[in-house]
Amino acid sequence: MAVIALDMGGTKIEGAVVLPDGTTALNCRNLLAGATGREVAEIAAATARKLIDEAHVLDIEVTAVGVCVPGIVYSETGTVWAPNVPGWECFPLHHFLTSALPGLPVYIDSDRSCAIYGETWTGVAAEARNAVFFAVGTGIGLGIKIDGHVIHGHSDIAGAAGWMALQTPAELKYKACGCFEYYASGNGIGARARGLIRDGAEGCRLPGSKPVEQITSHDVFDAYDHGDAIATSVLHKAVKMWGMASANIVSLLNPEVIIWGGGVFGPAVRFIDDIRAEAALWAQPVAMGQVRYVASHASGNPILQGAAYIALNGKQ
Amino acid sequence: MAVIALDMGGTKIEGAVVLPDGTTALNCRNLLAGATGREVAEIAAATARKLIDEAHVLDIEVTAVGVCVPGIVYSETGTVWAPNVPGWECFPLHHFLTSALPGLPVYIDSDRSCAIYGETWTGVAAEARNAVFFAVGTGIGLGIKIDGHVIHGHSDIAGAAGWMALQTPAELKYKACGCFEYYASGNGIGARARGLIRDGAEGCRLPGSKPVEQITSHDVFDAYDHGDAIATSVLHKAVKMWGMASANIVSLLNPEVIIWGGGVFGPAVRFIDDIRAEAALWAQPVAMGQVRYVASHASGNPILQGAAYIALNGKQ
Repeated sequence: MAVIALDMGGTKIEGAVVLPDGTTALNCRNLLAGATGREVAEIAAATARKLIDEAHVLDIEVTAVGVCVPGIVYSETGTVWAPNVPGWECFPLHHFLTSALPGLPVYIDSDRSCAIYGETWTGVAAEARNAVFFAVGTGIGLGIKIDGHVIHGHSDIAGAAGWMALQTPAELKYKACGCFEYYASGNGIGARARGLIRDGAEGCRLPGSKPVEQITSHDVFDAYDHGDAIATSVLHKAVKMWGMASANIVSLLNPEVIIWGGGVFGPAVRFIDDIRAEAALWAQPVAMGQVRYVASHASGNPILQGAAYIALNGKQ
Repeated sequence: MAVIALDMGGTKIEGAVVLPDGTTALNCRNLLAGATGREVAEIAAATARKLIDEAHVLDIEVTAVGVCVPGIVYSETGTVWAPNVPGWECFPLHHFLTSALPGLPVYIDSDRSCAIYGETWTGVAAEARNAVFFAVGTGIGLGIKIDGHVIHGHSDIAGAAGWMALQTPAELKYKACGCFEYYASGNGIGARARGLIRDGAEGCRLPGSKPVEQITSHDVFDAYDHGDAIATSVLHKAVKMWGMASANIVSLLNPEVIIWGGGVFGPAVRFIDDIRAEAALWAQPVAMGQVRYVASHASGNPILQGAAYIALNGKQ
């Protein structure tokens, strides 16, 4: 037997047939090509059906489907909110897929929860009962596993770490995205660099040949490698914020491992030791002494792996 | 049937015989009177034996013992660390009580965990699957119940919220107790007021007739009621910190209720609306809109109730 795993993105769907030991038997990818709302769900169902048919040829029976969504999955209603998928403000994904794939139970969870399931199933936090995944991309979210349970909270919003309060005073500029995200998400890093340039700061590589408004976090990391003063200032601030935020997780949740992933880690993996050093200035010292800071599983896709895990184990 | 509940303090032990519906059949209190280490455990065992005998007279059979300890309970070894009980740096309390009370299973948990068990069993968070207890006394700790589970973490240190990083930069003065506790614990509130007086600040009531070094958080609350400038400054700072810290809990854990208890709440209950207003400047807005901020169960002892709960339900 095996399960289908689907990783829903804003532009594509990654699909896989995953065996109970965690190995991938089949893979595929479908582009969304501008699809919205129900059309995206139809592509997801078609992706699953194609994989089921291919598995059948290999004499592999598919018993369930696990789906990872980049946003919030409301467990009671089976609806999803995914800001990067047009038309998924409150889409009844569970109902749609259960109807489209009769006879197969469908399990859906958020990308951050799937990441922590994947990393603790076959990744860098293998068998850890207490682990936290910092998903740092456009925004920041946490996948949190404590005492063996991946937590969801009262209305499935747990892990909204981008809103962490890390420095006084409260400023209006934090209101749209949260204080932590303002400084330390991919969007935040790009925006802080653009702000410094507009304020007249000088770097050796920024703004470079690009219009200021097109500068992204990728440009900031590139410029940092060349000693650019703006990039250095922005990324050192991000390191402090990653340190403080992870220190708070260490003190509050006492995990044995903190995993850094998402698009920004990526290039920010070079800072993991610095982040740990900053965290050690703040966190409960015994808990800090016990926790490992690691990069997300470099090879493979922990989120897709997590989608397979929830299908195999009937989670959500 | 019934259980024995014991609430271990630094100066006394509160004991009760609690019935499965949460009502208390018998109570008693024993002072420690300078006892240390094993002597404290002997008083605990004697307290339990006395209650068992009294229950027997009433034809109530005692089936288990639940003990709450003000510190850390290491679940694997059954040892406890309790800074306010002399000689309990690493005391084998589970082993001692199991030997001293043959035939009765003994369950031990921290005061903060017991508080959240008590409040969600029969208190202000009745039946909440997601609730957090801010225990603000000498120090600050959290009892955390998420998705129906009271969490303990990798080495039973979860909830060490006094170490939360809430404002930059990291300063040496936070090193001994944590940034949040420095400003917003009972100890911290007293120390900040003493520091301001030593720095020459002037209030209408502080320092008053006491030597500066004897001023406590109680004096600060008293002075606040008379418009004292030092007390106002110290408590307004504490309110901001309680707001930021609770905002972080709302964003990270998405609880349905936050409960304020411990010796400081108490007099700080008057600030709960202000704390909520400060938190709303920071937290994930949907989660913030759903959470209730309440004072701990005014009548009764939620910690003792929680000690009974773990005995009745075989927790830890």
